Amino acid sequence: MGEEANCDAVMEAGNGNGKAKENGHATAVLAMPDVKADDAVVAPADPRLQGISDAIRVVPHFPKQGIMFNDITTLLLRPGVFKDAVDMFVERYRGMGIAAVAGIEARGFIFGPAIALAIGAKFIPLRKPKKLPGEVISETYVLEYGTDCLEMHVGAIEPRERVLIVDDLVATGGTLCAAINLMERAGADVVECACLIGLPKFKQLGPMQDFYKLNGKPVYVLVESLEYEK
Amino acid sequence: MGEEANCDAVMEAGNGNGKAKENGHATAVLAMPDVKADDAVVAPADPRLQGISDAIRVVPHFPKQGIMFNDITTLLLRPGVFKDAVDMFVERYRGMGIAAVAGIEARGFIFGPAIALAIGAKFIPLRKPKKLPGEVISETYVLEYGTDCLEMHVGAIEPRERVLIVDDLVATGGTLCAAINLMERAGADVVECACLIGLPKFKQLGPMQDFYKLNGKPVYVLVESLEYEK
Repeated sequence: MGEEANCDAVMEAGNGNGKAKENGHATAVLAMPDVKADDAVVAPADPRLQGISDAIRVVPHFPKQGIMFNDITTLLLRPGVFKDAVDMFVERYRGMGIAAVAGIEARGFIFGPAIALAIGAKFIPLRKPKKLPGEVISETYVLEYGTDCLEMHVGAIEPRERVLIVDDLVATGGTLCAAINLMERAGADVVECACLIGLPKFKQLGPMQDFYKLNGKPVYVLVESLEYEK
Repeated sequence: MGEEANCDAVMEAGNGNGKAKENGHATAVLAMPDVKADDAVVAPADPRLQGISDAIRVVPHFPKQGIMFNDITTLLLRPGVFKDAVDMFVERYRGMGIAAVAGIEARGFIFGPAIALAIGAKFIPLRKPKKLPGEVISETYVLEYGTDCLEMHVGAIEPRERVLIVDDLVATGGTLCAAINLMERAGADVVECACLIGLPKFKQLGPMQDFYKLNGKPVYVLVESLEYEK
């Protein structure tokens, strides 16, 4: 869960494109990381994005003073909007030869399995230490104060398998970087990371800065939060 | 996650029926809590149950010596079997007027949202303390050594709404009891609890003891683990 993490990796601005619509909470943006700068087009904003953006609640000062927490549980209470969000991921990733969806504990578990089931991929949970039984590989990453760790089962992913990594939110990207590293150490091909929410504060600026990259991998976000930056 | 919890509540034997098939790991059992003893019939075993049972790995001595841990992550690596499990829950609960599916952190998040999406219900995460932002209600429950706690957002469920509670496994039932209590304190109508795995060690015996009850609510399990009792 990226909102509590710092990232050692360089975050690069991508060369995708998109069209943003503002609303009370956040900016709805359709990122298109596959579009090259040379042939970039402005995508029509998907009408579902506004509903998704509106359904996310911002809770001030959680888990600590100064943090504007993007709470996706209010979105989960609206079945049609929750379905829209999952559908948008599924429409993007269906037919891309993705063998595995990896979800980051705990909120990545809410979106990842539904995407995996819909595209016929296996689901791999990436968990906090000592939660997975059996043999695991671990990746430690830096937080603002101290470190944290993600674990994955040995054998969950095969070399050269194409994997999508899912979480609810990308902030500094520390947790997602650790997930990418875990997958690449196992020989997997990380296609992309997918998050419901991105925090533009942590997006480096470039000529076509409509999306995020971590460790050279695109990060696809459905909506951007403006509130987090306050 | 019931396997680490003790339950203060009385666990009652139900009056459902079912047909068991043994295999290397576990017993595949189709529980039918709606069937009364008077008109009980032996249900044909669903052929999907054997695959589900076979896909669950038993890891000895995790998280501590003497515990035979039922690991559902191996099932998640087989997309067809994972889909079978979710489909079986969906087939059971579709059309029952269920407004909400509540999933218990963290493995209940893997199954609950997919069921909720398929039956058009909202998803309510029941989380460990201090994970949910905003106003919550809490339910403390007894573990073997000490206590634990589940939290739910105030307003997530409305009085008289019908709710299904989902977790991966029911052992002593302590966590599920806490979840039922949370829901009933909020005025909700708990239809049933649904778990992939039940541990028959904790099922009280009765004349037609094919399923579980907790706090008077039926617990529907797809497969039973025999290994846990070793």
